[in-house]
Parts: sequence; structure tokens; C-alpha cells
Amino acid sequence: MSTRAAAEERTAVLIEALPYIQRFRGAVVVVKLGGNAMVDPALSATFAEDIVLMRSVGLRPVVVHGGGPQISELMERLGMVPEFRDGHRVTDAETVDIARMVLVGKVNREIVGALNLHGPLAVGVSGEDAGLITATARNPALGFVGDVETVNPALLLRLLAEDLIPVVSTIGADESGQTYNINADAVASSLAVALDAEKVIYLTDVEGLLADVDDPDSLISSIGAAALQSMVDAGVLTGGMIPKIAACLRAVQRGVGSAHLLDGRLPHVVLLELFSDSGIGTMITASGGRS
Amino acid sequence: MSTRAAAEERTAVLIEALPYIQRFRGAVVVVKLGGNAMVDPALSATFAEDIVLMRSVGLRPVVVHGGGPQISELMERLGMVPEFRDGHRVTDAETVDIARMVLVGKVNREIVGALNLHGPLAVGVSGEDAGLITATARNPALGFVGDVETVNPALLLRLLAEDLIPVVSTIGADESGQTYNINADAVASSLAVALDAEKVIYLTDVEGLLADVDDPDSLISSIGAAALQSMVDAGVLTGGMIPKIAACLRAVQRGVGSAHLLDGRLPHVVLLELFSDSGIGTMITASGGRS
Amino acid sequence: MSTRAAAEERTAVLIEALPYIQRFRGAVVVVKLGGNAMVDPALSATFAEDIVLMRSVGLRPVVVHGGGPQISELMERLGMVPEFRDGHRVTDAETVDIARMVLVGKVNREIVGALNLHGPLAVGVSGEDAGLITATARNPALGFVGDVETVNPALLLRLLAEDLIPVVSTIGADESGQTYNINADAVASSLAVALDAEKVIYLTDVEGLLADVDDPDSLISSIGAAALQSMVDAGVLTGGMIPKIAACLRAVQRGVGSAHLLDGRLPHVVLLELFSDSGIGTMITASGGRS
Amino acid sequence: MSTRAAAEERTAVLIEALPYIQRFRGAVVVVKLGGNAMVDPALSATFAEDIVLMRSVGLRPVVVHGGGPQISELMERLGMVPEFRDGHRVTDAETVDIARMVLVGKVNREIVGALNLHGPLAVGVSGEDAGLITATARNPALGFVGDVETVNPALLLRLLAEDLIPVVSTIGADESGQTYNINADAVASSLAVALDAEKVIYLTDVEGLLADVDDPDSLISSIGAAALQSMVDAGVLTGGMIPKIAACLRAVQRGVGSAHLLDGRLPHVVLLELFSDSGIGTMITASGGRS
Amino acid sequence: MSTRAAAEERTAVLIEALPYIQRFRGAVVVVKLGGNAMVDPALSATFAEDIVLMRSVGLRPVVVHGGGPQISELMERLGMVPEFRDGHRVTDAETVDIARMVLVGKVNREIVGALNLHGPLAVGVSGEDAGLITATARNPALGFVGDVETVNPALLLRLLAEDLIPVVSTIGADESGQTYNINADAVASSLAVALDAEKVIYLTDVEGLLADVDDPDSLISSIGAAALQSMVDAGVLTGGMIPKIAACLRAVQRGVGSAHLLDGRLPHVVLLELFSDSGIGTMITASGGRS
Amino acid sequence: MSTRAAAEERTAVLIEALPYIQRFRGAVVVVKLGGNAMVDPALSATFAEDIVLMRSVGLRPVVVHGGGPQISELMERLGMVPEFRDGHRVTDAETVDIARMVLVGKVNREIVGALNLHGPLAVGVSGEDAGLITATARNPALGFVGDVETVNPALLLRLLAEDLIPVVSTIGADESGQTYNINADAVASSLAVALDAEKVIYLTDVEGLLADVDDPDSLISSIGAAALQSMVDAGVLTGGMIPKIAACLRAVQRGVGSAHLLDGRLPHVVLLELFSDSGIGTMITASGGRS
Repeated sequence: MSTRAAAEERTAVLIEALPYIQRFRGAVVVVKLGGNAMVDPALSATFAEDIVLMRSVGLRPVVVHGGGPQISELMERLGMVPEFRDGHRVTDAETVDIARMVLVGKVNREIVGALNLHGPLAVGVSGEDAGLITATARNPALGFVGDVETVNPALLLRLLAEDLIPVVSTIGADESGQTYNINADAVASSLAVALDAEKVIYLTDVEGLLADVDDPDSLISSIGAAALQSMVDAGVLTGGMIPKIAACLRAVQRGVGSAHLLDGRLPHVVLLELFSDSGIGTMITASGGRS
Repeated sequence: MSTRAAAEERTAVLIEALPYIQRFRGAVVVVKLGGNAMVDPALSATFAEDIVLMRSVGLRPVVVHGGGPQISELMERLGMVPEFRDGHRVTDAETVDIARMVLVGKVNREIVGALNLHGPLAVGVSGEDAGLITATARNPALGFVGDVETVNPALLLRLLAEDLIPVVSTIGADESGQTYNINADAVASSLAVALDAEKVIYLTDVEGLLADVDDPDSLISSIGAAALQSMVDAGVLTGGMIPKIAACLRAVQRGVGSAHLLDGRLPHVVLLELFSDSGIGTMITASGGRS
Repeated sequence: MSTRAAAEERTAVLIEALPYIQRFRGAVVVVKLGGNAMVDPALSATFAEDIVLMRSVGLRPVVVHGGGPQISELMERLGMVPEFRDGHRVTDAETVDIARMVLVGKVNREIVGALNLHGPLAVGVSGEDAGLITATARNPALGFVGDVETVNPALLLRLLAEDLIPVVSTIGADESGQTYNINADAVASSLAVALDAEKVIYLTDVEGLLADVDDPDSLISSIGAAALQSMVDAGVLTGGMIPKIAACLRAVQRGVGSAHLLDGRLPHVVLLELFSDSGIGTMITASGGRS
Repeated sequence: MSTRAAAEERTAVLIEALPYIQRFRGAVVVVKLGGNAMVDPALSATFAEDIVLMRSVGLRPVVVHGGGPQISELMERLGMVPEFRDGHRVTDAETVDIARMVLVGKVNREIVGALNLHGPLAVGVSGEDAGLITATARNPALGFVGDVETVNPALLLRLLAEDLIPVVSTIGADESGQTYNINADAVASSLAVALDAEKVIYLTDVEGLLADVDDPDSLISSIGAAALQSMVDAGVLTGGMIPKIAACLRAVQRGVGSAHLLDGRLPHVVLLELFSDSGIGTMITASGGRS
Repeated sequence: MSTRAAAEERTAVLIEALPYIQRFRGAVVVVKLGGNAMVDPALSATFAEDIVLMRSVGLRPVVVHGGGPQISELMERLGMVPEFRDGHRVTDAETVDIARMVLVGKVNREIVGALNLHGPLAVGVSGEDAGLITATARNPALGFVGDVETVNPALLLRLLAEDLIPVVSTIGADESGQTYNINADAVASSLAVALDAEKVIYLTDVEGLLADVDDPDSLISSIGAAALQSMVDAGVLTGGMIPKIAACLRAVQRGVGSAHLLDGRLPHVVLLELFSDSGIGTMITASGGRS
Repeated sequence: MSTRAAAEERTAVLIEALPYIQRFRGAVVVVKLGGNAMVDPALSATFAEDIVLMRSVGLRPVVVHGGGPQISELMERLGMVPEFRDGHRVTDAETVDIARMVLVGKVNREIVGALNLHGPLAVGVSGEDAGLITATARNPALGFVGDVETVNPALLLRLLAEDLIPVVSTIGADESGQTYNINADAVASSLAVALDAEKVIYLTDVEGLLADVDDPDSLISSIGAAALQSMVDAGVLTGGMIPKIAACLRAVQRGVGSAHLLDGRLPHVVLLELFSDSGIGTMITASGGRS
């Protein structure tokens, strides 16, 4: 294709994107990235491009990340045996220190680094900074696994006002200073509510929510909170999807415009969601229906 | 093409545009539009899209327009005979009133209207507003044809700070309140200097500057101020191109990053210039060479 | 009179004006000027002086203008025949273009020009700018005659905050970009409400409201909204006064301090109203009585 | 005179005053009032009106006052004998306490009270407040008679920014906290320089500066700094005029636009000066000549 | 004690003070000082140190003072005989002038001077300044003895925002400009309410509130508003304590955190109250009990 | 000691501290903490108290930390063998990842946690965040050991303006995104210069600088830059002290008021330095001499 033709095509696409850009101008979008997502360098690069482009066209992205696999890997290198109960990592004092070290000092840094290849844009933040997240123990039997107690979004709002991109590690502390590892899905939802976000996006390693878990063609494109709650109540959903769905429901019920389950293995999936009206992953809204 | 494939292509293009978007973030770009440019409704619509998209991705566009054909048309309908001397319209008191009425009340309004189809974004401004442009007579024999004497950009800066798009009619007044019709090419250049613009773009009805006016393949893609001045001094340039070239030279010599001559008949030509590294029209810089 | 004596008298008068100046400090006053008002150059000059002086002593004037005679005049020069139905100009597509051209490009400019003889103070604004006024069709049979649907005063407030004087042409657009010519009396009233104005002043070519239209001595100096509504209901009022009265009633019923009908043929009539407690024209308030 | 006629005359005067109002908009004017000036209640009221009107039309007045007669009067009531040397009051510890009490607690308060009859506009300030004026001893033989060492205008600028009228008593302190009574003429000049004032006005009990002290018709209307310095050097001036003239010269030599000697016994003399081009008192400028 | 040991002890004390400092950060504290308090220079110096230290560690102190003894003293030196009725000074026109002169020109100045030995921190203010306090007559038989009618705290808030320490004399004016001498206990309470203060502190010449006025060991350390009101109703309290108690009650009932009666004869008693949990004077709160 | 006596002593100490507090109000103080300093929990707690108290009395502390021992410890647990050359750790890709993880995810977090026991005050920052520190390789043979190339203090200034305490890990990145471990002494010095700091304080495990390294009584209390440079040139200094001294010299030569070497093993040594005039550690200034 000639240079001129390529430029014309590029221009046409930009113009098609214009209504989407205008619709979301100034909106906060919280994007939750699983620990797996940073493992593939190519995906990590396209993710960073998406986030930087979102900011360039006037959205205000906030990244929240987990890091389970990386925590387990370091524990294993140190000769420790990760133990899980009901899907939660049993977390003693040494484990929470390792989790914090890996999340704040490794996974967060890799995301910040990928973003900052595009300029001095990103700032790593832990839930412990400036009282962002206070935590309580979920269950004594699990040790230092925490739930979000309160969110003080002042620090994030300040960074967003400076046009910076916060990247949040999901460590919280209680009043005594004890730290907890908190489920990143729940943190993303809580931050989206506190920041009055337009969207909260979960990048997963499945295509979205399936009506029939055994039928890959049964992807639900769009669902309302009530219908989704019915599915939960009917016991249709299983495994790791349950807490993610709970987080989505909580977000849209407290004012977030929509929650999205997207397939993080797909390059540029965040942009695909933002710039097409239909068909990427599953969208959850308070009342159902793609707008 | 499937919906998914289309969305992927769209995304790829957006990502390619990212470095251009980042490079010009926050930059002021003055775009001068000839009177012919608003005659074709399709072109007028693509022009508006380009300007709105520029704003959406963080640039700060300012539109300057002329309107010679529209002025002549109304004069003729009123039974007046336009008279030109050395390319300037001889402008008596009635003519300057008609010119003002057409520029401010018709051409400006049509541009504002086309832009505001995308939202309440544009504001029409005349050089007489809040002391924006003071004028002096160019030549008594021409009547109320003016030159720019001073520019006070405070009003434009205020509108830009509110994320609005100023559309400027090129009427100026002197201290006694006498109004003048000023050449729009010169006004665009003066505003670009006063606004510390990154670019000033002239939309014309030719492809750009030709090294040999008779050879359409001799388009000059890029030229420095010194080389261009040599062409002027050698008498190679003719007709309406001369004042435009003088305006370009003045802009780049006073700190504007680059001046561009683009073919306004080409849809989305402004975006094409911004989002490709080579090949659209003629770029004039202080030192020459496409960056 | 000696210089000293003249200066002393001048000083005495200024001191008498002090309480009036203090009472209105910071208040927004919307002044509506009929199309006739700009025809007499001497009156136009005294009007500009009044507006500039208002601003100098701390009021914040906003000028709204009509221009019916000027529109008719241009139409006639172009060989068109103005047609009226129930006092409204039947307005086809060409007529609304001419109306806009005359209002924005001629009448507005003349007012801006008269004000700016005193400094770079005034800025012309059309209702189409930055979403100031959205319009709807009043009656399909009248074509593009509009009613005010919404007012977004952000642009005017920004200009007032910069100590500038907005001069507003009463063209509005609907969502499709179609423009309408709107009655200037209604626009003045709507702007006064949206700007939380202290006063809205209508300059007319009669002395004020007469209790008996045939008795020039029956001028009503002051009247409350309820009494005035009774007069309207009783069918006492006729002709062009009816929409003006409706606009006054709407303004004072929605929080504007007072509405005034003044004789625009009287030099400096706006200042006379501001700087005397009694006797100029007709004052309409929510509850009646001159304060 | 009929009401209408009075209003018309009032309006005419306001319009005549408009150019003066526009010329001085935003300018700081320091007005120094002698102790005598507050003795006549009628004069005190007209003075207050002048100051309030200045503020109402956009100037920013600062009042500086003395109070010699009032200090002497209280000393006498307390059985003390005022002693003067070279025109300066010999000021022991008890005397400086009495001077401060009278200036800050009586004269200043009376001025503030007269101004605040027009609204909550004035704030009394002593040179000791917030480091406004630091002082040094002029001459050990005189005791606590001070000279201005430094001026920190931050407090006054803050009050002016709030549209308040500072009324300044001329007490200063040195680093040890010792207070001094400072000549009010000198303080007015120092404040005018520190505030970048347009004018400093001295209200006295003579008509102005006389070329021949014995000839009341020899009033000098306007004089430049060089010519005035020559008069000083020639020994033509005498008595209390000398420090006043020195203060005027210092002010205009350090950037104040003009210094004025006016006859404070004349009602509204400050307004007379501001609103007439010629003939009131003596104006001193750096280069001479009434503008 | 060695230098090192002294520094270590100093450090230990600072660290102990840290929780108190953090608790009151940013809080407004109104401190009322009786006329007696400024008589002893040593006490006056320690008082100034306390106020300056409060400001240095982040509190925002406001000082309110009386001056009865100083007023009486000057009256006597002038041969006047102070007369009291029900604890109030009968105040004719001359007396209110003297009161104002002494309060604003002497007592206020001495406090400002003592504070400003530590830097340019304090600003003297009278209730007449910028409409801070408007007053009404308490009782015609008492003459110009006033009650607080309204408080406009704008001037004080502005000074506090500049990190300055206001020192307030309790003179107020009514709309006619008539000045009144107002009880300083009542002013302190009214200002504390208007400034949303954390504490109002009264420095007196007794240890605090005694349950049994004849038993110095019956000091009440802490009492709630209801219990204190009961004591008032039971007639247990007498003399000068009654208006002070009424002022305390009014403050805590309108939102001030606590009111304190402290023994102003004790060096650094204000700091002692702020930096110890128990035992200095009497603390009054809405609900009782030391927090 | 009785409660009252204790409170009085506390008060006396606070008052003694007042001049120190006033001297440093608003000043930025950079405190560098070695990796050893966080090992002793008691010392870590007293350090946190000192930093929080500094902030409470109006200073603006910034903490910079190293973590060599903690990096070595994790490397050893992972079976790696730390290797040093000329005092620098040879740092391959895996090592720099471990260093970053330990510094940002462990040491930084422990400091933030200790500070935040006092409230939501501290925010962890890495040199990679928002372009704070760009780095270049020091020496290819050392791998990813970096030098500070540029400092962009915008993020730190924003956090300080919000009254937050930044805690900085000394990781920097180059333009390609490659991260480097940078010597913390050098970073502290560079930040102090970029922040226009009053002081930079190095906490070490020696008493200060000894004139004779073998004589513990030869502590140098205060030294100027020139004399210290002479000692360096004479080869008197050895080992780890050399880069620290170079950092101190660079800081004071570029405008930092003073650099301090303090014994971090001493509880509250930072406060001891701030609140005593003599005798703690070694103070380095541009010109020598304790002020």
C-alpha cells in the first residue's frame, strides 16, 4: 500500500474513533490486570500502549494489578510451599512480606516501566501509601488475607489531576500497621466506586462469561446486574469467576457505569472494548444492554 | 470484513497514531481556511471532523478564515462591481461593511456551525473583539484594506484554556474604530506567532509549492526559510502564492515550528499532515528538512 | 462657570451617585436594544457610554440586540419581500441566513465597535457559540423562528469574569445544527434568569407602559407582576408590547430583581434609570413598588 | 430643578467623569491626611465619601494619617508639656506610648469609622502589624522619633486584593520591639513606592506650593522634580513644607506617577484633583507638566 | 547537665508532645486575655511564647483581649471617676472614646508587640474593622455598653490563611457608626463559634471553677454543659464568673469543642493545657469528661 | 515527679525549641537512611517519630534509603553470590531485579509503614516514577550500577505541597527503560539540590567524620567545603566514607545549606541535630563554621 493510501486509511480510522473519544473524555477507567498478564512481553507492550493511548485521548486510566503466580514463584525459589484454602493463599507473616515485595517491588515496577517507555507518565502506588486502602482480616484461618475496609482516593485524584497514570498494588494496612494482601478484583471494584469511574475492566484469561461453561459459543455479550445475580444464585458460576463477578456487581450497583470481563490474551483488547460497540467480552451494567 | 476484524484494524491504526498524538499534545495549531473551502459541504464536514479530532487528542486548534468569493457574491447580488488592484479588493466604506457582514455573519457562522455539530465546542471571534487585532491602512488607494498592527491574544488564550475552538474572522479596527478587511493569510501568521503555535497550516486549492509551476510533479515536500526566500527573490513564485509564502516565512522566522501549504480539496488533509511523516503538501521550517 | 466651580459641581454630583454605585456593585444587568436603537449615531454613542460607565463603576452589563429593520432592509435590497404573520417574520432557509448575517455580522459589530471606542472591552457572541442558546421551532408555519430551549451561560460568565462586555446576537441552533432567529426580548429575559441578573432593561421607542394607551400621561412608573398579569389577562395591552411584557414577567418571576421598559430615544436613559429613584419608564418587580 | 432634570445632570457628569475613571482603573493612590483634617466633622465626612467613591470606581486607595494636635491635646490633659526640636516632637518612652494610643486608638479609628458608614470597607493598620514598617531612631536627642527603614507591603496588598481600604497609623518598631513615632509624610511616600502607586496625595492646610510664600497668587500648579529640587537648594522653602517636599521628591524619583499637595480644607478636594485636568493644588512629577 | 544530655531530654519531650501536636493540627483556638494579664512583663512574654509556639506547631490562634484596669487608669489620670452598675462600666460618649483608645491603641498594641518580637506574625484588629463585629446597646442606662449582634469572620479567616495571628480589641459599631465597648468574654465566645474553633480559652486570675467558692481544693477539672447550667441555675456561682460561664456555655453549645478557664498567673498555662491530658484549670464541654 | 511538674518541664522544653522550629519552618530536609538503619525496630520507630515531628513543626522531610544488606540477604537465600568491585555491587540483570524488589517492595515499605503508624502521611516513590530520576551506567564492568543523570522533582514537590512525606527508593531508568541501582548517598545529594533543600542528613553507623580515623576523640564537629576537599585530596579519608563525603561536597557547593553526617545508632539523632546548636556528628557547609 502506498504511503498516501496508508495515511488516508489511518485518517479514516481516526475519524471513526472520534465519537468514542468524545463519549469518554475525562472519564476514569480502572483496569485490573492479572498476574499472568505481565508474563508475555508482547502482551505487556500492547497493554501499555492501550493505557497510554487512553490517556492521550482524554480518559483517565488507573491500573490495578495482582501477581499470584509471581508470588508463588518466589516462594518456591525460597523453598516455601504455597498453601491455598478456598482459593485464598494462606498468608503468614513471612508470606505477606514476600507478597508485598513481589507485588510492589516487581510486578508493579514492570507495569510502570512498560508505561514509562512512552514518557514519564506512570507512578507506582501501594494501598499503604497516604492511607489509600485500609484493610481488615478476612478470616483468621487465612492469616494476613485482607478485605478492603475504606478507600481514601485523595492521592489517586491528585495524581490524575497531574495527568499521571497510577499503578496500584493491592497491599493494605490496618490501624496497627499490619499489612494484608488483598484480592485485586475487589480492590479494582472499590477504587472504581471511590473514583466515580465510568468503567472497571477485568483482564482475564477467558473470553468472557459463558452461559454454559462447557460451550465456548455461549459467550454472554451483555448482562444486567439482576440477571447476573440470578445466575450467581442459581450456582451456575464456578471457581475464580465467582469473586470477579461479585466485584463487578458491587461496582455497577454503586454507580460505576459498566464492568467488563475481557480476554487479556487478545492484543489491545482494552482499546477494542473502548472503540467498538459490540462483541468484545462481557459487559455488566446496572440495567443490562449495551448502550 | 467481520466486526472483530474491523475493530482490530481500527485499534492498530490508533496505536500507530500514538506517537504523533504524544508529540503534539498541548500544541497550538492555527489552520487557515480559504473562502472556497466552505463551499463544498462534504469537505466542510471532513474539515470539521479534523479540527474536532485534533482537540480531542490534546491539540489546541485555532481556525482563521477568509471569504473573498462570498463577499463578491453578495456584492454582485446587491448590484455592486468588485474591483481589484494588485490582487487586493478596493474597499470603500460600504464594501468593508459588506465584507464584515459576510465574514463574521456568514462564513464564520458556517464554520462554527459545522464544528458545533460535534458539541458546544466552537466560538466565533472577530479581530475587533476585545482588541484582538488592531489594523492600519495598507494603502490609501485601496481604501479599508488593512495590515495587522498588533495582536492581543488574551481572548484566544482564555477560550483555549476553556478547551474551546476559536474561529477568527479577519476584520480589525484602528484606534478611531474604523474597520478594515485584512488578508487572512497574514492574520493566520500573526496569530500563530502571538500564540506561540507549533504549526500554521494553509489550506489552498493547489497541491503545495511547485519548483516549476508548469510541472505538477515538481512538488516541494519540504523547504527551509533561506531556500524559500531565494526562490522569492529569484521571482520564481507568482500570483496568490506570494503573500501566502510571505506569511509562512514570517511565521517560521518568528518562532512557529513549521508552516504548511496543503491541498484543501483533499478530504482530511489536516489529519493526513499531522499523522504522517512525509509527503502531504509543502512544509516550511526555519532550517529546512522534515523532522 | 469657572473651571473650579465646574469641578466642584461635578464632584458634588459624583458623590450623590455614590449610593447608587454601591447598591449595584457586582450586579449583572442585561440590556436589550432594539434594532432601531443603533440607527441614530448620537444615541448609539450615548448608549455605549452608558454601558462602559456601568462596567467602570462595578456593574457587569450584558447587551442583547435585535435587528428587524436591518434584516428587512437587506432583504429588500436583495429583492426579497419580508412577510409577517402574527408579528413574526416568516423565515425560510434563505431568510434565516440573511437574518444571521445581518445580526451577527452587522448590528452586533456596530455595537461592539461603539463600545470598543472606549477600549478593548466588548466581545460579540452569537447564541450558537459554545452552546449558549439551543432553540426549537416555534411553529412550522413560521419556518425558522425559534424559541429558547436551554441556556448555557458558561461562556458569558467567563467573559464577565475577565471584565469584558458580551454583546449577544439572538441566533440559536438545534441539535441538528439548524439555526433559528429568536425574538430578542425573550432571549434577554432567558439570559437574565440564567445569569442571576439584578435587572433586565428593555430599550423601546415608547416612554414605558401606559395604563391607557391613548393617554400619554398615564405612564405606569412601577407595577408588580400580579397587577401586570391582570392587565394582560384583561386584554388591555396590544401589539409589540405583549411579548415584551411576557418576557418581563417571566424574568421577575424567576428571580431577576426587576425588569424595565425604557424609552431608548432618550439620551443616557440607562444611566438615568440606574441613578434616580423615580420616574424613568416602567419598572416591573415580583411584588410591585419602587425600592 | 425637576427630578428628571437632576437625573440628567447627574448622568451628564458621570459621563464626563468616564475618561478619568478609565484612566485610573486599578491604580493604587496613597492619601495622607494631617491630624487637623479629622477635626472638622463635615470635612471628615466629605473625605470619607471621596475615598469610598475612589474605590467604587475601581481605584485602590490607601489612607495614611498623622495626629500631632491630638497627641499634644492628650499630653496636655495629662499634665505633660510637649517639647519640639527642629519641628520634631521630643519623644520619651511615655510620649511614644501616648502617641501610639492616640494615633492607633483614636485618630485611625475615627477615619475607619467615617469610612465604614458606607459599608464594611476599611481596616485600621499600624506599621507594627505583620512587619509592615520597621523603624530606626532618627536622632538620639529626639528619643523615639523614627525613620522608615523597611516596608513590607504584603499585608496591605492582601487587604487591597480583598477590596478593603487600609488606614495606616505611622508607628513602627525596630528589631528589639521598641516602637517609634514616624513622620506621616515620609511614611506615605515610602508606602507609595512600595505599593507601586500611581499617585501620593498630601492633604495640607495651604492651597499648595507658592513660588513666593508671601504672594497667595503665586501657586505653582505643576512642577518637575529637578525644578523643585532647585527651589529646595535655593532655600526658598521653609518650615513644615520642607519634609513634605522631600517626601514628594523621593516618591516621584522612585517610580510613583505623581505627588500632589492639596488644600485639605476644601471639600472633596481629592475628587477635584482626580476629576479635573488642571488647577487644584500643586502636582509634582519626575519630569514636570500636567499630563 | 551535659549539652548532649540536655539535647536528649529536649528531644524526648518533643517526641512526647507529638500526639498532642498531631491532634490539634490546623485547629483554631481563641484565647481570651484579661486586662490584668498584660501587666506583668514576664507573664506577658511567656504568653507570647505560647501563642507563637501554638502557631509553629500548626494551630491557628486568635487572641481576644479586655482592658478594664487600663481604661480605669487613664480615666483617673484624666480626672474622671469610673462608675459601675451590675458589673458594667457606665459608658458615656467620652468614656467609650477612651475605652477604644486604650484597648486598640495601648493594650492591643502591647500584645502585638510582644508577639512580634518573634517575627512579623501578629496583626491588631478592632471589631470595627471590615464589619467584624456589629453591636447593639445592652441597656440604655449603661450608655455605650454593647452586645455582639453579628460576627463577619472574613477578615480573620483571611489573616489566618496568611499564617498571621489576629489580636482582637472588643470594640464594635452599630449601623449608624456609633461605637460600643463589648465584654471581651462574650466576644471570645462569639468569635470561637464563628470561626468553628476547637477551643476557647479564658485566662483569669483564679485557678478555675471551684465547686465550693470557699474551698480552694474544690477545683472542678472537667464539667459538661448540663451540669454547669445546673450550677448556674442553683445560684452557686457569683460575681465576675457568671458572664464568663455564660460565654463558655454558649460556645460549647454552638459547636466549639471545649471551653477552658485557666489561671493566667501561671507561666505557660496555655501550653500546659494543650500538652497535658489532665489537671490544668477547668474544661467545659458539651457532654462533659476530659477526652 | 508530679503530673503538674512534668507538664511544666515539658512546656519549658517546648519553649526552648521554639527558635529552632521558627528557623527551619517550611525548609526541605533530605534524610538518607542506610540499609542497616531499618534493622533495629526500636531505632526504626524513633526515626519515624523524628520525621513525623519534623513535619508537624513545619519542616518538609524527604526520606531516601539504601538497602545493601537486605539485597545481599535475599540473594543469598536464592543461592546467589554477591560480588563487589571497588565497593560497588556487580549487578547483572537478575541482580538489578532483585535489588529493585528489595528496595521498593521491602525496605521502602517498612519505612512507609513505620511512618504511617502516625497517620496517612508517607508515600513510597521509586526513582522510576514520573521520570523522577534518569540514570546512566557508571561502568560497563559493573553492569546495571547507575549514576544520576537528571532529576525531575515535580512529583516530590506535588507530594510535599499536599503535606505528604515522600520515601524514595534509589532505582532509576534510562530512556530505553533499563533500570539501574544507584548509590543512595548520591541520590540524596541530587534530590537535595533539585529540591533546594536546607539540609541533607546522612545517617551512618559512625559518630561522624574523624580527623584521625584511629582516634575516636578526633570528631570534627564542623568543616567547610574547602577544608574538607583538602582532606580528600590528602588521602586522609578511606573506604565507604569517600562517596558520602563527595555527595556532601556536591550538595553544599550547589546551594544546599548544610550536609550532616550523624550516627544513626543514636536514638532521635535527627532531632538532636535540629534542636541543638552544637556537638552532634559532623556538619559540612560551603564556608565552614556552625551558624
